Amino acid sequence: MSSQAEIIAKDGAQAFSILKTLTDEERSDALHQIYHGLKDHKQDILDANKIDMKNAIDHNLSSSLVRRLNLEDKGKFDSMLQGILDVANLEDPVGKITLAKKLDDGLNLYRVTAPIGTLLIIFESRPEVIANITSLAIKSGNSAILKGGKESYQTFKVMSNIISQILQQKTKVPNKAIQLIESRNEVNDLLSQDRYIDLVIPRGSNELVRNIKSSTKIPVLGHADGICAIYVDDEFDDINKAINIIIDSKTNYPAGCNAVEQLLINKNVSQIDINHIINKLIESKVICNVTDEVKSLLTTTINSDYIKSVESDSFDKEFLSFEIAITLIDSLDQAISHINLHSSKHTDCIITANKTKAEKFLKGIDSAGVYWNCSTRFADGFRYGFGTEVGISTNKIHARGPVGLEGLMSYQYQLKGNGHIVSEYVGAGGNKVFIHEDLPLK
Amino acid sequence: MSSQAEIIAKDGAQAFSILKTLTDEERSDALHQIYHGLKDHKQDILDANKIDMKNAIDHNLSSSLVRRLNLEDKGKFDSMLQGILDVANLEDPVGKITLAKKLDDGLNLYRVTAPIGTLLIIFESRPEVIANITSLAIKSGNSAILKGGKESYQTFKVMSNIISQILQQKTKVPNKAIQLIESRNEVNDLLSQDRYIDLVIPRGSNELVRNIKSSTKIPVLGHADGICAIYVDDEFDDINKAINIIIDSKTNYPAGCNAVEQLLINKNVSQIDINHIINKLIESKVICNVTDEVKSLLTTTINSDYIKSVESDSFDKEFLSFEIAITLIDSLDQAISHINLHSSKHTDCIITANKTKAEKFLKGIDSAGVYWNCSTRFADGFRYGFGTEVGISTNKIHARGPVGLEGLMSYQYQLKGNGHIVSEYVGAGGNKVFIHEDLPLK
Repeated sequence: MSSQAEIIAKDGAQAFSILKTLTDEERSDALHQIYHGLKDHKQDILDANKIDMKNAIDHNLSSSLVRRLNLEDKGKFDSMLQGILDVANLEDPVGKITLAKKLDDGLNLYRVTAPIGTLLIIFESRPEVIANITSLAIKSGNSAILKGGKESYQTFKVMSNIISQILQQKTKVPNKAIQLIESRNEVNDLLSQDRYIDLVIPRGSNELVRNIKSSTKIPVLGHADGICAIYVDDEFDDINKAINIIIDSKTNYPAGCNAVEQLLINKNVSQIDINHIINKLIESKVICNVTDEVKSLLTTTINSDYIKSVESDSFDKEFLSFEIAITLIDSLDQAISHINLHSSKHTDCIITANKTKAEKFLKGIDSAGVYWNCSTRFADGFRYGFGTEVGISTNKIHARGPVGLEGLMSYQYQLKGNGHIVSEYVGAGGNKVFIHEDLPLK
Repeated sequence: MSSQAEIIAKDGAQAFSILKTLTDEERSDALHQIYHGLKDHKQDILDANKIDMKNAIDHNLSSSLVRRLNLEDKGKFDSMLQGILDVANLEDPVGKITLAKKLDDGLNLYRVTAPIGTLLIIFESRPEVIANITSLAIKSGNSAILKGGKESYQTFKVMSNIISQILQQKTKVPNKAIQLIESRNEVNDLLSQDRYIDLVIPRGSNELVRNIKSSTKIPVLGHADGICAIYVDDEFDDINKAINIIIDSKTNYPAGCNAVEQLLINKNVSQIDINHIINKLIESKVICNVTDEVKSLLTTTINSDYIKSVESDSFDKEFLSFEIAITLIDSLDQAISHINLHSSKHTDCIITANKTKAEKFLKGIDSAGVYWNCSTRFADGFRYGFGTEVGISTNKIHARGPVGLEGLMSYQYQLKGNGHIVSEYVGAGGNKVFIHEDLPLK
C-alpha cells in the first residue's frame, strides 16, 4: 500500500506531467484566475489571518513575528496580488532554445529549457509567500508541494483551498500541481520520495536546511550558512568608502545570510586606518573578535569592551549578530586561499582600487557572489533585478546565488530526425559522418 | 588528525583554488606539456600496459576486456595523445559572460561561467580515459581525484606519475590538481568529504552508481539506469522507417544505456504492422515480453520461442540485452504519462508523421533526450558533437544527457561597484532605486 507521502509525491509528479505540456498562455491564465480568486475571497483570507495572529499573540510570540503574519500590514495583501500578475507577465521561461546543431541532413539537435519537475518547498510563516511561490511554480511549469511555517497555517489553508478550487474549476493546470501539506512529519516522509520529487527548496533556519540536507537523497537547493568575508587590500582609494562598505555589510541587517562575518585586512594597511575601521565598527556597536596580531596594533582610543580574542572557530562561524572576526592577511593569494577554505561560498568582497588585483580576486574566489567595492548585502534577488526569488543557493551545481524563475528551469535535448539510425554512422557499424554544424538560435 | 581521504580531498580543493586563477593559456599549455610528457614516455607506459594485460590474461578475464586494456590496439595511444591536443584547442569555457545588468550608476552585475571545484571521477578499466578526463578537468579549471578500474592500474600509475611530474616541473597547474587513488576503500572514505569535494562522476555499472548515490551527500552526476522507450503513433508515415528505428535502438548495442527497453504501440496501429514490427525484432533475435492484449493480436507466423508474457516489473527494467517489453497504448497522453512514470528520464522517442503530436510528446516527456523519428542510440556526446564526454546524466538539475566540457562548468555572479552600500536603497533604509538595465554581453 502506498504511504500518504508517496500518494502526495506521485500526485505531484503526475500533475507535473500534464502541466509540462501546457502553453505559456494557459499557465499565465491560471495565474490571472488565482489573482481573481484570492481577490474575491479577500475577506475569508483576512478572517483566517486574524486567527493566526490571535494564536500568535496568545502564545506570546514576538511582535515582529506577529507583524510578519499580518496580511493587512502596509498594503501587503494588494502587493501580494500584484506579485501574481507580475510573474504572469514575465517572459515564458519554458522552451527557449539555447543550442541548435545540425548533426546530419534532416537530423537536428536542440537544447531547450524545460521545468525541473516536482518541487518540495518549505518556507517561513509569511502568508504572502504561498502566492508568490505558487506563481513561480506554475509560470515555470513545475509542480510544487508546499509546507509553510505553522504560525500562518490558517491563512495558508484558506488560500490553498481557494487556489486548489480555482485550478480545478477554471484552468488547465491540474489542481494537484500545487499541494499544501500540514505537518513536519509529512515533510520527513516526503524527503524519502526521491522517485517523484526532484528538488527540495528549504527556506528557514540554518538548522532546518542542514537537517534536510542530511536526511534526503533528493537534491537540496539553498544555503545552510552565509559566512561572507570582506578583504581590505592595501591599495583601496578611500578609507571612508571602505568603512561604509564594511559597516553596511555588517550592520544593515546582521541576521541576513548576506551580512559580512569576517574582515581580512592586508598587513600593509596603516595602523591608523586599521584603528579607524575598528573604531567605526565599535561605534556601530559591533563586537570585534580579533587575532593577537590585530590586538597588538590597537591604540588606547579603542573601546576595549568591544574587543574579544578570536577563538578556534571564529573564522568558520556565522555570527548573525553585531559581531565580526578580524585578522591580518599577508597577500591577495593568502586572502583567496583563506576565503576559499573558510567562507560558505555565499558572497565575498574585495575592497581595492587596483583592477588587476580585483580581477584576480573575482576569478579566484569560489563563491556564488564575488564582489568588488560594494556591500555584500546586495546579494538578493530583488536587488539583482530577478523579481521574486525563491531563495539563495550556495550549491555549486545548478543554480547559484539568488534563485529566480531561471533557477527553477532545467533543459532537455530534442533530436528531430526522419528515420535516422546510428548503425549507418562511423563508430556504430556504418560509414556516414556527422556534420555537426551550428544552426542559428531562433 | 586528518584522515588520508581528508588530506587528498583538501589537497584537491587547495589545488583548485590556484587552478581557478589561471588563464586559458596556462591551462592549455599544461595540456601540451602533458601531451609531450606522455609521448616521450610512450615505452614506459606500454611496458606497464603489458603487465596489466598479462595480469588480465593470467586471471582469465574476457578477451574483449583484454582488448580494451590494450593501449597498442588500433592506434589507441596516438589517438589518446591527439585527444589531449583537441581539448587544449577548444574554446575557453571559463569566464564567459552570460548575463550583464546595470543595477545602478557604477554598479554592474555579471554572471560569468566558472569551474565547479573538486571532482571525484570513478571510471572503467580503459587506460586512455585517464588522459581524456585529465584534459577535460584541467581545461575546465576543475581539480580531479581519479579512480580507474583496477585492471588498468599499472598503466594508470605510470601515466599518473608522468602527469604529476610534468605538472610540477613544467606548468603553473598545481600537481595536486590531478590525483590518482588506488583502492575502492579510498573512494568510500572520499565520499564523506563533502566539505571539499563538489561533484562525484561515476562511470560504470548501474550497481556502482546506485551504491555511490546512496552513500554520499555530495551531488552525483551520472545515470544508474537507461530505461528508454519508443512510442509508435498510429500516424507514422513508413512502417519500414519505424522498424529500422526500433531495430537500431534495440540491437545496435543492447548493453548501451541508450538502447531502447520498451516499445509502446498505439492501439490503432494495424494488426499487420504490429506483427511486422514484432517479426522483425524476432528476426534480430530479440525476445519480446508482451502484454496479453499484444499477445492476442499475434498471428501464427510469429516464432513463439521469442514471445514471453510481461511480468510486473517489465516496464521498470533495463534489459541491457536482446530483450524488450511491448504494450499497447490508447493515446498520446497515455504514452506521455506512461513514459514519465516508467522511464529513467534518459532518452525517449516518438515515431509519427504528425508534427503537432510530435511537439506535444517532445514538450511533455520529462527526459534528458526527447526524440522524434530517430534512434535512441544517438544519445551520446560524440554524436551530439560535444567532443569528449565524461558521461551521460539522468539528473534533472545541472547537466542533463551527454556531459562534455560545458557540463563541468558552473557560474558566479560578479558585482562591481564603487563604494555602493544597500542602506541607501529602498527596502534597506534609503530611497535610491535600482536601474536594472540589461547591458550588452561583451
